[in-house]
Amino acid sequence: MVPHLITALTGPINELEARILESMPAIERWFRLEWMEHTPPFYCAVDLRNAGYKLAPVDTELYPSAFNNLTPEMLPLAVQAAMAAVEKICPEAKNLLLVPGPELANPFYLTHLQRLVEVFTLAGLNVRLGTLARDAKGPRKLALPDGGSLTIEPLQRGKRRLGLKDFDPCTILLNNELREGVPGLLEDLHEQYLLPPLHASTSSRRKSRHFQSYEEVAKRFAKLLGMDPWLIHPMYGQCGKVDFGTAEGLECVKSNVDALLTKIRRKHKEYGIADKAFVVVKSDAMGGPDVLTVRDAKDLDDPQRRARMSRGADPVREVIVQEGVPTYERINDAVAEPVVYMIDRYVIGGFYRVHAARGTDESLDAPGSAYVPLAFAESTQLPRRGAKPGASAPNRFYMYGVIGRLAMLGASYELEATDPEAEVYA
Amino acid sequence: MVPHLITALTGPINELEARILESMPAIERWFRLEWMEHTPPFYCAVDLRNAGYKLAPVDTELYPSAFNNLTPEMLPLAVQAAMAAVEKICPEAKNLLLVPGPELANPFYLTHLQRLVEVFTLAGLNVRLGTLARDAKGPRKLALPDGGSLTIEPLQRGKRRLGLKDFDPCTILLNNELREGVPGLLEDLHEQYLLPPLHASTSSRRKSRHFQSYEEVAKRFAKLLGMDPWLIHPMYGQCGKVDFGTAEGLECVKSNVDALLTKIRRKHKEYGIADKAFVVVKSDAMGGPDVLTVRDAKDLDDPQRRARMSRGADPVREVIVQEGVPTYERINDAVAEPVVYMIDRYVIGGFYRVHAARGTDESLDAPGSAYVPLAFAESTQLPRRGAKPGASAPNRFYMYGVIGRLAMLGASYELEATDPEAEVYA
Repeated sequence: MVPHLITALTGPINELEARILESMPAIERWFRLEWMEHTPPFYCAVDLRNAGYKLAPVDTELYPSAFNNLTPEMLPLAVQAAMAAVEKICPEAKNLLLVPGPELANPFYLTHLQRLVEVFTLAGLNVRLGTLARDAKGPRKLALPDGGSLTIEPLQRGKRRLGLKDFDPCTILLNNELREGVPGLLEDLHEQYLLPPLHASTSSRRKSRHFQSYEEVAKRFAKLLGMDPWLIHPMYGQCGKVDFGTAEGLECVKSNVDALLTKIRRKHKEYGIADKAFVVVKSDAMGGPDVLTVRDAKDLDDPQRRARMSRGADPVREVIVQEGVPTYERINDAVAEPVVYMIDRYVIGGFYRVHAARGTDESLDAPGSAYVPLAFAESTQLPRRGAKPGASAPNRFYMYGVIGRLAMLGASYELEATDPEAEVYA
Repeated sequence: MVPHLITALTGPINELEARILESMPAIERWFRLEWMEHTPPFYCAVDLRNAGYKLAPVDTELYPSAFNNLTPEMLPLAVQAAMAAVEKICPEAKNLLLVPGPELANPFYLTHLQRLVEVFTLAGLNVRLGTLARDAKGPRKLALPDGGSLTIEPLQRGKRRLGLKDFDPCTILLNNELREGVPGLLEDLHEQYLLPPLHASTSSRRKSRHFQSYEEVAKRFAKLLGMDPWLIHPMYGQCGKVDFGTAEGLECVKSNVDALLTKIRRKHKEYGIADKAFVVVKSDAMGGPDVLTVRDAKDLDDPQRRARMSRGADPVREVIVQEGVPTYERINDAVAEPVVYMIDRYVIGGFYRVHAARGTDESLDAPGSAYVPLAFAESTQLPRRGAKPGASAPNRFYMYGVIGRLAMLGASYELEATDPEAEVYA
């Protein structure tokens, strides 16, 4: 299934696509050299928004949770990438301990886990699942939608190592974002590889820190290609604590919104873009609640609008104000955004996230979204050079793979900058 | 298309398959550790013969020439493997110089070259072709069967580097086996990566040396799995110079044939195999002419039979006498043998070589052979664990990928043992 792209066949994105295609050897070489200096996250999923006039990552997840949306055709690429990753991290590994998130009642998440187990088993590891649930007593069978099952076991923490009963892993792979903070039994594991590292957990990351790193990456990449980094980077500003109930601290948000809207309008004028500028106000903490679409700073004076940001326990939060990037891709009239999946430094596949009830300027990562797997696997790596930019789906997907990898590299910079161990040598 | 396998669903091969599947994590770990010690050839193609009672490599090519037989679905795996290989060898590389063989009038070979160029271009390199032909004056266009074209240019040798006009490559990839020996302009290139190394050329390699290394690999692997190495290894003996015209030196061949037939019959008895034992007599030099199937040493007294080995300029040659491994796989009644393709340490695909006019005990690599591409890419890496051995094509292909990699590892041992540079440190 090839999505219907309503993005115009002329304009900035097509220039960007043409530039990316003609620079492919330079781009791949640049990535190779970057990955010599910077360690890629073990796995990563990047949400992109294609506005036609710009293409930007809006979310870089370090605990991807939708391997179930990849097609079976993508699995060999995933297995090969997993082999490369394992070889680099722990070539003598026999055992991999996978620690899932709490969504074990969700059949999609269970199928996702099944795929992950499959990938790492086929990469040559004994894979077993361990739960962080404190009340886990013994092994528990999880029934899978396809009739199969997975077994999840209580974790056993020794003085220096973490494992399961009769199972001592070389690597512990977290598929749990640790939203509630880092449990003690994951701390001080210096003999085993714990991936992603604890400071990558959702409770530790800040969106502003990620986009600061991504901006650095985008600027370097734009310099390599001799282009405006804005074409691949969403501008942003940040504020300290804001109380969305009492409106305390809201002035900072409003002035950031104003300043950002002005900057966006200037860019729109420069590129002759007719779209009305908007920004999104998000919680700076990862895994925060909803995202607020704002077209005017005055919108924030409305307590009902603000209420969307004060849902949950705490109406006080730090926020990031980010340039709104609409997504103009559609599948059967529903708004769609591409999601790129990576293991180690390799693009292994992707899919479209589709939401029929949402607008082009809203987040699609919300209840009611659907997923359209794409034969990304073939496409990202096989652009047809010489094909007219924009005319060929495969070319578009190569570009998605490049921007996905830029966001992943941003995450790599981010994790280096936030690594608490790194301070020791600073 | 899934081939019809007439191999029995019980017997040694299915035991081997079951053993290989249950030992997958141990096998992959073993390969990872082997590749830490030994450098895989840059690319490699291995011909296998599946006799039902044993599965053995019979030819390990270091200049694979049939990428055209891989399906488009296999290309992403090839590209990913090529990226890994380039990253390891020369991460700062921009340019790759590909030196094709002399078969430029063969449309299949041209399509093969087109695929190779595609793979390395998509891996992020500027790829250009250089010819070893001494009479090449300027760039020459090669028309491709699909209507496209490739350009091949005269090589330019500097004092220390080899390139093309305005093209200085980091890596020179030979797809030319150098049957006629090593031309001077490829010698003493110490600043560039020349792959495969010159001592891998067909004029330098000896089959007996390869199978000596493969035997070592097969024994180690068999020890890991606690099985008889004979199940994956063809026994062999070798002789010095034999004149197939005058029969001088033939006694050595005959006694080797006798000894080998006795050993094979003993193995057949041990495993209850009803097949009549046979051996093949081949030129020990790589790229030698035909292969002689012999069931009795007396067969060699017949000058007409011997004539097959004395074709070509020189009736005198060194020979290897090898256990004959019949291939019992068939596609539409034609005898078939699997061919496994690899780049760096990764299986990237494969196909069946099919020959309607040849018997199960003859070489299929002969004029008249056809090729059936297989969805190997998906299959080699995605065995269905738990499926009944022999009942599932994917499982069989995983096994082929394992034996293909063992032969590649054999080539790696072989090239280390024959490396003329290595002697310096010996």
